[in-house]
Amino acid sequence: MGYLKEIERAIELFSSLPMIGPKTAQRLTFWLVKEKEKIDEIMAALKDIRDRVEPCKVCFSLTLKDRQPCDICMDDTREPVLCVVANPSDVLIFEEYGIFRGYYHVLGGLISPLDGVGPESLRIEELINRLKSGKYKEVLFALPPTVEGDTTSFYIAKRIEGEGIKVRLSRLAHGLPVGAQLDYADTLTLVKALENRQPLNLEEER
Amino acid sequence: MGYLKEIERAIELFSSLPMIGPKTAQRLTFWLVKEKEKIDEIMAALKDIRDRVEPCKVCFSLTLKDRQPCDICMDDTREPVLCVVANPSDVLIFEEYGIFRGYYHVLGGLISPLDGVGPESLRIEELINRLKSGKYKEVLFALPPTVEGDTTSFYIAKRIEGEGIKVRLSRLAHGLPVGAQLDYADTLTLVKALENRQPLNLEEER
Repeated sequence: MGYLKEIERAIELFSSLPMIGPKTAQRLTFWLVKEKEKIDEIMAALKDIRDRVEPCKVCFSLTLKDRQPCDICMDDTREPVLCVVANPSDVLIFEEYGIFRGYYHVLGGLISPLDGVGPESLRIEELINRLKSGKYKEVLFALPPTVEGDTTSFYIAKRIEGEGIKVRLSRLAHGLPVGAQLDYADTLTLVKALENRQPLNLEEER
Repeated sequence: MGYLKEIERAIELFSSLPMIGPKTAQRLTFWLVKEKEKIDEIMAALKDIRDRVEPCKVCFSLTLKDRQPCDICMDDTREPVLCVVANPSDVLIFEEYGIFRGYYHVLGGLISPLDGVGPESLRIEELINRLKSGKYKEVLFALPPTVEGDTTSFYIAKRIEGEGIKVRLSRLAHGLPVGAQLDYADTLTLVKALENRQPLNLEEER
């Protein structure tokens, strides 16, 4: 209504961010008015994200513009296991818990015909090319236990088989609550799902 | 752990903001990496808050540096009722619902001896000076129904009485859930609390 436009605009903008409702946006805005020195810190972080962060050209996880490929891809001490995930944030989950010591490949989503996402919009060709190098002994699918996740795993497994690439295929053990997002799993559940990872058998699922 | 420092720093920073937990901070950070054009909008809003927004020199609500006093204080068509609130955000609540057409005075907090907040750290002298002008016929206390809110109302009421200022004193009707914050009340509750506002009688409470 008659309230300060600049404040209303900030509240509306913050409300449009994911997982931030109008009340949080409002509290945040008035809090920032009082904590102006925090604004500089936030602006510096946003500037870093905008100007310096970009996808790794090899694994499509995040890295800096001047650090290509990323530190994980450049780390020769890791195990020759390639963990296939949907999003860059999934890499953070594994890395912050320190429970996986292989490499990653970020697909950039999941096959979902209903949302118009076909295999060609994901980084599947790039994955196939990485596997052709022979560097990896195992592909571990860490996709969500949903229809889209399973469809994507099986599509890729068939592509690998079709290319005649010899590599062990596995997926995270069921144990993750079905329908749950990867980033809401607790550490122990993730550890179990990693320990009990199972061979991916195309025959069994057909 | 081994994850990109710039991303970890952003997540940690966002987690330190009010009402934003680590999971929200994480989602927000990865979302911003994908929605870089939103970053410019957010930076513009933050810059406005940092460089242009400041307290009104009369009512201590928010205004722009080049708009002193604020639009509400400059609006001669409002009723001569002065609504005393704790924080600038309380003004937004009344204004966005359009249910109050008087003026405001933002104290900047509540008297709270346990937190070391005495009357001298609030804008009480400024309030007394505004009332001495004779412009206001009524002072409406819209402070939270807590010990601190009541203590503050009664302290100010006594100061007004002590100064010999003739003005009607009222407060929001009980009807607000006790212990609740003003900005969590629904519109109807606020309308009722305004309609049923009651005279503030010093004798009755002693």
